[in-house]
Parts: sequence; structure tokens; C-alpha cells
Amino acid sequence: MQRLIVTVIIAFLAAIALGPVVIPWLKRMKFGQTIYDLGPKSHLKKQGIPTMGGIIFALPILIVPVIMSYGYQRGRLMWLALICTLGFGAVGFVDDFIKVKLKRSLGLTPIQKLIPQIIISLALALWAYFDPQIGSALRVPFSGGEWNLGWFFIPAMVFVLVGTVNSANLLDGLDGLLASCSLIDFATMALVVMALAVGEDPRQDGSLTCVMLLCGAAAGALMGFLRFNAYPAGVFMGDVGSFTIGGLLAGVCLVTRFSLLLPIIALAMVLSSLSDIIQVTYFKATHGKRIFRMAPLHHHFELGGMPETRIVSMYTIGTALLCLVALLGVN
Amino acid sequence: MQRLIVTVIIAFLAAIALGPVVIPWLKRMKFGQTIYDLGPKSHLKKQGIPTMGGIIFALPILIVPVIMSYGYQRGRLMWLALICTLGFGAVGFVDDFIKVKLKRSLGLTPIQKLIPQIIISLALALWAYFDPQIGSALRVPFSGGEWNLGWFFIPAMVFVLVGTVNSANLLDGLDGLLASCSLIDFATMALVVMALAVGEDPRQDGSLTCVMLLCGAAAGALMGFLRFNAYPAGVFMGDVGSFTIGGLLAGVCLVTRFSLLLPIIALAMVLSSLSDIIQVTYFKATHGKRIFRMAPLHHHFELGGMPETRIVSMYTIGTALLCLVALLGVN
Repeated sequence: MQRLIVTVIIAFLAAIALGPVVIPWLKRMKFGQTIYDLGPKSHLKKQGIPTMGGIIFALPILIVPVIMSYGYQRGRLMWLALICTLGFGAVGFVDDFIKVKLKRSLGLTPIQKLIPQIIISLALALWAYFDPQIGSALRVPFSGGEWNLGWFFIPAMVFVLVGTVNSANLLDGLDGLLASCSLIDFATMALVVMALAVGEDPRQDGSLTCVMLLCGAAAGALMGFLRFNAYPAGVFMGDVGSFTIGGLLAGVCLVTRFSLLLPIIALAMVLSSLSDIIQVTYFKATHGKRIFRMAPLHHHFELGGMPETRIVSMYTIGTALLCLVALLGVN
Repeated sequence: MQRLIVTVIIAFLAAIALGPVVIPWLKRMKFGQTIYDLGPKSHLKKQGIPTMGGIIFALPILIVPVIMSYGYQRGRLMWLALICTLGFGAVGFVDDFIKVKLKRSLGLTPIQKLIPQIIISLALALWAYFDPQIGSALRVPFSGGEWNLGWFFIPAMVFVLVGTVNSANLLDGLDGLLASCSLIDFATMALVVMALAVGEDPRQDGSLTCVMLLCGAAAGALMGFLRFNAYPAGVFMGDVGSFTIGGLLAGVCLVTRFSLLLPIIALAMVLSSLSDIIQVTYFKATHGKRIFRMAPLHHHFELGGMPETRIVSMYTIGTALLCLVALLGVN
């Protein structure tokens, strides 16, 4: 518990310290956001605010837990989650980099993004499937039971990983939105994993304890990042940020076998994806009609006249409520 | 733990449900905020937004813990904290009511406010002093020891109670500022009291468990209130809100003997008071010079050009960090 709190604080301070270094550097390198042509018109004023700020929390997430788990038997779970974070974060980084260098808003083409994502997901799902500490059975919230997916675990986890990462990416559309929601998710996952780790002696086998530290570091680093990203944002996280968040969240759920918590704690991400899919499908089926004013869902609220900050607080509060429900389902 | 989470959720839902009832009623009753003449000019646009919204969280705070502690031996601590909350909340309510009815911005005169505050504080301090579960010794964070104040406990606690309530009142100057900071304070106190209550069988003696539920209810209710109070605020909490928050926070610290945590977890409040006192003293001593652009401190940042939302996120993040430090000092 002491170690968890110190980890959160150090990751927070690391992000706070990185901000004033990274943001001016991004500005100098002209890593300004090229605002997505199809977004709300009011977002055009955000042109020029630096992007790729996700580096500010990605570095503490990757480094702080490794340092703070000194003296513990780290096991494989933390490393697996870190590889997942790093893998997806790297795809996001490349995408951002191409966007900025080629000055086009969309970066990699959808297929170019999807192929490395599927490769990473498949490798991780296979590892998890054959790892005796993970295996193919998922924990079922509220029932306390398990659900063994057998070999179907592998495509299911590819879907969960790719889905989470891209949903996180879609949710990243308003100042502080994804950072606030995922901060609460990681704090919740730290508590969930803490409950699992009860009785674990981390000096003999700290597998779960180290995953808990990783979640704590993510919560702390995102808290620090919000100092710069809360409305009015001084920096955007970019794909390097949203992919890092999505990769870590799905990775932690993969190694703790808690993927079934994702529809609860990450409902905001799920709704972003669903609204996008519904909108596009309906648009194509009806040859031009729309269900939402704009997808993903948060832009629908925005175009309905709700102030950006109120949408963010609504999502954050809703996520907090859902995370409390998830905690009920885990105990 | 289950009971705590359910309490948070119910208090949250109660506040969410009360909002759409209370806010239109306040508007009908013309309980609009008469903006403080001496505040920043940019706040004049807030004229007409209803105040006294603190009722939205005060009612759940007073009612939900009493319901949710059914079947527990409640003991005296929760009642003492609730009386503290209700007593100060009532002073705030009267103050708001007079402001609105007499259409003057300041409500009760400072002396008229201070006298009932001192009477309430003195009564509570005396009760605590003679209560065998409380007594005159404060817990000292980080050392694990105690500091017995003897009879000096009584004036000290009067100072802490009156000081906290008025500092909370001063901090309530920007949309969502006091609600966000105190939400984190109450969540932290719930964890602190949970650690104290370990091993307590609440059916035999639930003194501390019930105080924990009270803190949880406050966190939940404030989360719900933020749905309406976050920038751009649709309602202000008024003195009934800030006095309720201050009374509950100081009351919880009084009954758990953790008043020495207040300078850490409620540093934002302390700074509000200190900056106000420094400003007024300096102004009088120099016959018209100012140290801050405007006191309390958050207005100083505001007049320095920092956006309101960024000040609120800075205070919230800072409070979260300090609360983590406080948790380190308690374990």
C-alpha cells in the first residue's frame, strides 16, 4: 500500500516535470495538431496546439513501475502488460509522426494501422493462452466464477485488444476527456488488482503486486498530464497517448483475466466505438442519413450545444459511477 | 467495503436525482446569486445563476449515511459529525436566505455569522473533550504518535472548526472548485477511517465504520453535484453548501482525532484563508498596497490570465497529490 502510493506520487511528479520539457520541444519540432477535417468546426481554433503529448505520461508509465518494483519478484504479468503498452504506443507514435511530417490529418491508412495492431494482439493473446498464470479462462464479475473460452480465447482477446485501443483513440476528442476517464479506470484497476494480490508476498512472487504498481503509475502519470491537458488544453496526447492508454488498459485486463470488466469501466470507450459504427453503417444503408449529429458520441453532445467542459465532466462522473459498480462486482 | 461502495453510489444517485428538482425550484424562488461586488469583473456574467445548490448534496449527506448504517451499532461519532454538519449548514442556509431575501450580497454581517459558529464549535469541542472515544489527544500523521493538548484542545478545536468552515467558504469562488477539492478530501478521509476501522465488527460497535460511510456519502453526493456545478456551472452551492462541506470535513477530523491532517488535505482552503488575511493585513498596514492581484488566491491566478477551468484543475490535482501524501502519513 505504501509502495503503491509512492509509485502514484512519483509517476505524477515525473509527468509534471516532463510537461515543461516536452511541450516546448513539441512546439519547436512543429508537432502541432492538424485538426481532423471532419471534426466540429469549433475545433478549428485548436489548430497549432502541440500533439504527441502522450509522451508525457507514456514515459513514466513505462519506467516508474520497473523502478518501483525493485526488490520484488516481478514475474511475467507486468512485463506482458508493459510490452502491450509499448507495442501499441509505438504504432501510435509512428502514426503521429507520419501525420506531422506529411502534414496530413489521418497519418497511417486504416489498414496500415490495423495490421501491426493485429500482429501485436495475436502475439500477446497466444502468450497469454499458453501462460500458466493466465490461460483461457476469464473471471466473471458479480458471479465470482470463471468462463473458459478454450481456443476461442485467442480471437476474442485480439478483438478486445484491437477494440480497446481504437476505442480509446476515438474517445480522445475533447480536452481532458480520455485522460480523465482512463485515470479513473486505472485507479480502479489498481484497487481491483490490490484485492487479487492480498496475501501475495511480493518478494517471493510479486506478479500481481507489480501489475498493481503499473496501474498506480498510470493513474499518477495521467493526473500529472491533466495539468497540461485539462480544458483549455495546452497539449494533446495524440495517437501515441491514446494507443498507450488503450494498450495498457487492455493489457492489464488481459493479464489479470478481467477483460469482462472493460464494458463496465470503459463504457465511454465502448460507446465511442459503437456510435461510430452505428453512424457509418446507417449512413451507408440509408445513402446519407445520420443518427447522431456527429460521431463519436461526444461530438453529438457537443453539436447539441453542450459545453465541452460539461461533456467531459459528465463522462468523468459517469465513468466514476461505473467503476464503483465494477468494484462491487469484484469483491 | 461493499457497504461503502453502495453508500457512495446511492448518495451519488440521490444528488443526481435532486438536481433537476432543486435547481428549477431555486430558479422559481429567485434564489439567483447576487454576485459579490468585490469579485473579478468577469464573474458578473454569472449573475442570475441560482445559488443554494448545496442543498443538492447536503440532504444526501445528512440522510444516506443514517439509512446505510442500518443494522450497525452507530455509536456517537457519526452523530457528532452529522450535528456539526447540520449546525454549520444551518448557519449557511440562514445566511443565503437573508442574502436572497434582502437582495444584499453579504447576507449576515461577519459578527452575526461568527457568533453562532463559535457557539456550535464550543459545544462540539466540549463534547469531544469529555467523550471517552475522542478526548484531548490528536493523532500525529507520519509519527504514528499522539499529541495530548489537555484543556487547550477546546480553544484549538474551536479554531479548527471555525477556521475550516470559513476557509471552505472562501475557496468556493470558481465553478466546481470547492466541490472537486472536497470530493477528493472526503474520499481520502473514507480511506483513512477505513484503515482505522479495520477489525471493528460494526454490529457490535460500528463507530468508525459509520464515520467511513458518512465520508463515502459526502464523496458520492459531491460527485453528483459536480454534474451541475462543473464549469460552466448551472448552479452554485452557496453558503449552505460551503458551510456544510467545511462543517463535515472538520467534524470528521474532530471525531477521528485527525485534525492535524487538515493542513495537508485541505491546503487549498488554508491558502484561501491565508491569502485573504495577508492581503487585508498588508493593505491596512501599507494604506492601500496589495500583495495579490485579488484575494483569495484563486482570484489572484484568475486575474493573472489563467483560465478558470485550468485553475480548478490545478487545485484539484494538487489536492489529489496532497491527499496521497496524507495517506502515506496515516498508514
